[in-house]
Amino acid sequence: MVPQKTLGALVMSGRFYGVGVGPGDPQLLTLQALKVLQESQVIAAPRTKGENTMALDIVSQVVDLRDKEIVWLDFAMKRDPKARASSQKNNTELLLAPLRQGKSVAMLSIGDASTFSNVSYFIDAVKEDGHEVVIVAGITAFSAAAAKWQVSLTARDEPLTIIPAGATDLDEVLALKGSKILMKPTMPVEKLIASLERAGVLEETRLAERITWPEERTLDSMKGVTEELGYFTTLFVPAKEKEI
Amino acid sequence: MVPQKTLGALVMSGRFYGVGVGPGDPQLLTLQALKVLQESQVIAAPRTKGENTMALDIVSQVVDLRDKEIVWLDFAMKRDPKARASSQKNNTELLLAPLRQGKSVAMLSIGDASTFSNVSYFIDAVKEDGHEVVIVAGITAFSAAAAKWQVSLTARDEPLTIIPAGATDLDEVLALKGSKILMKPTMPVEKLIASLERAGVLEETRLAERITWPEERTLDSMKGVTEELGYFTTLFVPAKEKEI
Repeated sequence: MVPQKTLGALVMSGRFYGVGVGPGDPQLLTLQALKVLQESQVIAAPRTKGENTMALDIVSQVVDLRDKEIVWLDFAMKRDPKARASSQKNNTELLLAPLRQGKSVAMLSIGDASTFSNVSYFIDAVKEDGHEVVIVAGITAFSAAAAKWQVSLTARDEPLTIIPAGATDLDEVLALKGSKILMKPTMPVEKLIASLERAGVLEETRLAERITWPEERTLDSMKGVTEELGYFTTLFVPAKEKEI
Repeated sequence: MVPQKTLGALVMSGRFYGVGVGPGDPQLLTLQALKVLQESQVIAAPRTKGENTMALDIVSQVVDLRDKEIVWLDFAMKRDPKARASSQKNNTELLLAPLRQGKSVAMLSIGDASTFSNVSYFIDAVKEDGHEVVIVAGITAFSAAAAKWQVSLTARDEPLTIIPAGATDLDEVLALKGSKILMKPTMPVEKLIASLERAGVLEETRLAERITWPEERTLDSMKGVTEELGYFTTLFVPAKEKEI
């Protein structure tokens, strides 16, 4: 009924792997991710102002990197389209060079490789250059935070809405039915708090920062929070009613 | 910066573990889940009409079950509150019995343990009976489906809405901004198709059934689909516009 052979084929030369490495604890890597990383010749690691080298730090705890070629991908964190396009172009070249030499390249992505991940920006270019692409799913920060809080993200009959807080109209989203996850909050904290207050959910909104890291911080309520929120913050607004 | 010691403490006797085992491929278990399952004395496995014994089938491929005590949890799949309450009570007793004997119990959950999972129904009762609870996050079917399709679930500035299709008003949800994931579709397929058609998204809606299983089926469009959808079906409605 369930696979004898696994989804994760052997790592092949000249293939591009987009690998979700989970939120921070290397024990949250999947068996497939571990295997792909162990077998890949090149590891492409994002290096941003906000994230630093976190993805590679996670991997370095469970994968021997001594024989790996490391390619650093520098991402423009700005919203300026020109800066984005330029870093996109540079990074594509950095990824294609080893692929053209027939090497297997695993690009790391914090969390899941399909949820707010940079991996998606390279898939088309890699394919157009003639290389095979394999995406390896990862544990999201919101699943890890829910595990820590021991809460269900979903109510039986209600939606779960996941939003990048800052880009989206928060008042509008908070008015929706069901639970909400707010990720990567880039809006000023007082605006966010005011919005939670208007929606009447300030007290029950939970916070998880750097979940599963040693410096992890969790709060069961957003009441009284005044400091700006970091990039690695996940908020959970539970649904008003839950049914068993 | 990142953990030396891991989140996953050693498995302790008398502890209850809610373990997400991923969507089907055992290679999508996390390292933490594997360790907890290897070390737990008792494995509690759901056995439902829709799911059969799938969660245990996944685990049996990577964990030696010969020395494990298996506890079967039978779930009422009906919406009848009485049937639910009765199966809930029986299952709670089945879980508490080994915990009271000081044994470690790992309850399996397909996908993630906090997303449409039965684990959440037992957390309070287990705690009230004096036992410690640890939840282990898992890969969701929608992350695995996105990996297969090589698509991004999220657009930079837009929400992602995850709904149980059948319980929720689909027209209302499809009118929301951003991408949508429809899970566990229990509504008649013609109603669902009609709703996708009204929203103008029939052609671009993707289907994944039993993702990562050998009998996995994926479709890049819902156009022409007429057969009823199984319980293990995930649909993805991409956002109208995407920005890089």
